[in-house]
Amino acid sequence: MAEQTKVLVTGGGSVGTIAALNLQSGDLAEVTLVMRSNYQVVKDNGFSIDSCDHGKLVRWRPSNSEPNVLISVIIIISLTKEYTVLNAIPTIHSNEEGYDYVVITTKNVPTENGHQVSQIAPSITPGRTIIVLIQNGLNIERPYLERFPDNIVLSGVSMIGSEEIEPGVIKHSFTDQLTVGPFHNPNLNRQEEITAAKHLVKMYSAAGKAGKASCLYDEAVGWNRWKKLVYNASMNPICALTGLDAGQVRFAGDAVSKLVRDTMTEIDAAAKASGYKLPADIVEFMATVDRVEDHFVPSMLQDVRKGNKTEFEYLLGEPLREGQRLGVPMPVLSTLYALCQAMQWRIGNEQTN
Amino acid sequence: MAEQTKVLVTGGGSVGTIAALNLQSGDLAEVTLVMRSNYQVVKDNGFSIDSCDHGKLVRWRPSNSEPNVLISVIIIISLTKEYTVLNAIPTIHSNEEGYDYVVITTKNVPTENGHQVSQIAPSITPGRTIIVLIQNGLNIERPYLERFPDNIVLSGVSMIGSEEIEPGVIKHSFTDQLTVGPFHNPNLNRQEEITAAKHLVKMYSAAGKAGKASCLYDEAVGWNRWKKLVYNASMNPICALTGLDAGQVRFAGDAVSKLVRDTMTEIDAAAKASGYKLPADIVEFMATVDRVEDHFVPSMLQDVRKGNKTEFEYLLGEPLREGQRLGVPMPVLSTLYALCQAMQWRIGNEQTN
Repeated sequence: MAEQTKVLVTGGGSVGTIAALNLQSGDLAEVTLVMRSNYQVVKDNGFSIDSCDHGKLVRWRPSNSEPNVLISVIIIISLTKEYTVLNAIPTIHSNEEGYDYVVITTKNVPTENGHQVSQIAPSITPGRTIIVLIQNGLNIERPYLERFPDNIVLSGVSMIGSEEIEPGVIKHSFTDQLTVGPFHNPNLNRQEEITAAKHLVKMYSAAGKAGKASCLYDEAVGWNRWKKLVYNASMNPICALTGLDAGQVRFAGDAVSKLVRDTMTEIDAAAKASGYKLPADIVEFMATVDRVEDHFVPSMLQDVRKGNKTEFEYLLGEPLREGQRLGVPMPVLSTLYALCQAMQWRIGNEQTN
Repeated sequence: MAEQTKVLVTGGGSVGTIAALNLQSGDLAEVTLVMRSNYQVVKDNGFSIDSCDHGKLVRWRPSNSEPNVLISVIIIISLTKEYTVLNAIPTIHSNEEGYDYVVITTKNVPTENGHQVSQIAPSITPGRTIIVLIQNGLNIERPYLERFPDNIVLSGVSMIGSEEIEPGVIKHSFTDQLTVGPFHNPNLNRQEEITAAKHLVKMYSAAGKAGKASCLYDEAVGWNRWKKLVYNASMNPICALTGLDAGQVRFAGDAVSKLVRDTMTEIDAAAKASGYKLPADIVEFMATVDRVEDHFVPSMLQDVRKGNKTEFEYLLGEPLREGQRLGVPMPVLSTLYALCQAMQWRIGNEQTN
């Protein structure tokens, strides 16, 4: 058996759990998953996962040690069959080898210490660990490149449909499609960045034998992020603010349909100003991609319903600031942004009271 | 005792109940109040009212017939001491005298039969009954003038702070300040319209002996409505969409503060285009009028919290359409409008499911 790559996955929610499950079942990675709010529930009862890629997995416990079972996602499997469940980011000391990859799927919201990079930093070996951000939005890599100027940082864009419907219970409804490519770091060799990304693709794709996830190398990280933002910067705030799911938005009225297209058109213009020319029909495609019967709930509405803060700063704030910096008029997006700022304040206020 | 004016008040919610209470306690009006959702609760237990103008009134029942007590608001007091509690709009037949005034405080939202004028019409004697709309927003008189081209229609702008915190329980926290003036009907004699408005002011003000409400004649109905819209068309949707009360909005962030002012500036511009020049400091005044400690909840947020439809078509939709018709750019207001349309769709959907 070839030596496994050591991978730490942070965020045992709907995306991170499936990512860990998939990496582990490919058998090329030795996966550790860090959980937080659902740690105790999962430690006591295991995950319940209903996955379109991996099947139904009920009451999986870390202590279940049957070979090749997928519960191993939340343990470190070593040759001696020891395992560890982590409820906090581990600290790697200078005499330790550390992780080859740290895959960050945690919700990208401010922590008590500011940006979450401060929380995750102790697990990253400077100049060595490859940092993978499976998170939505724009400019998410900046705090990492600033803190770890000599580390490779990879972009993961996930098209998964997965929801943690209660702590430890994951409903994974749309197949896991991940694209991975480097956020280019001018300090580093481009070829090494590409090699790091392709190795992650290989590990992730190895699960093909057990699951149905697809993972592709992404040559155009910036272009793909802007493309996804056409949907995310519009449908996410609109659904979060109104309480409608994405299918319902399509049928809620003429002004609503126009709002969706106006928002998407602003993002498309900002992308173009940033140097990314998206397909001519991108707005109409994204505005009609949801089927009403799917009742797809974008991540920000999932967060609002759970009383959690949203990633609006990266989904809306960064593209808005980027567009404004380049002189693109964005009156609709700035209105949505301000409303999301207000909603975030309410959620923060309710969390502390 | 002078003959009393027959007044029907529709809408036994937070505004209508206090209006009826105030008119009745002035003793110049014989008041009938029509309730709907809270009818049975009030019939069984009476209203509980905690009023800054009228004091604390607990378990008032229609059947309590002590002289001069304020529970009489929900009964018709006749000289024979009979009373009637109404749970539906009464129908006035052609051989009946009917009501002198019908005061409409009902929430201005579409009914099953379209505009609420269809529901209220049977209680109005064509060419005789004076119609009083104590409702917010713009162009609210149009459906009434269309249906009753020979009736006087009055505008009531209420500055009351009153909330029905549960069915039949009214918390009235800010003194009742009503301004009344005619919506001018070109078919009618202007002087008769003014006389009708001034008689309502007299009846409403007569409660001064029992309460503290103020009621003033309004010479500038249009100007005052636009002035109030500077607040209502902005704070109402912003609070309803984000869940913040009006005091919290002031401290929720820079983008939020800017949004409030941008929205108010658009309304101010639309008012100006409509011929109503508002005070130069109107935006700054309205943007800072709420004190955080008051936790004032604008009516649309009250409605959303109760799962009720909102009056957004008259608070936002009409000023938006008016501004757009006159060529005023209103990108912020049209975004808020579209989001409110989506939210209304959700509320309607939840009511039918």
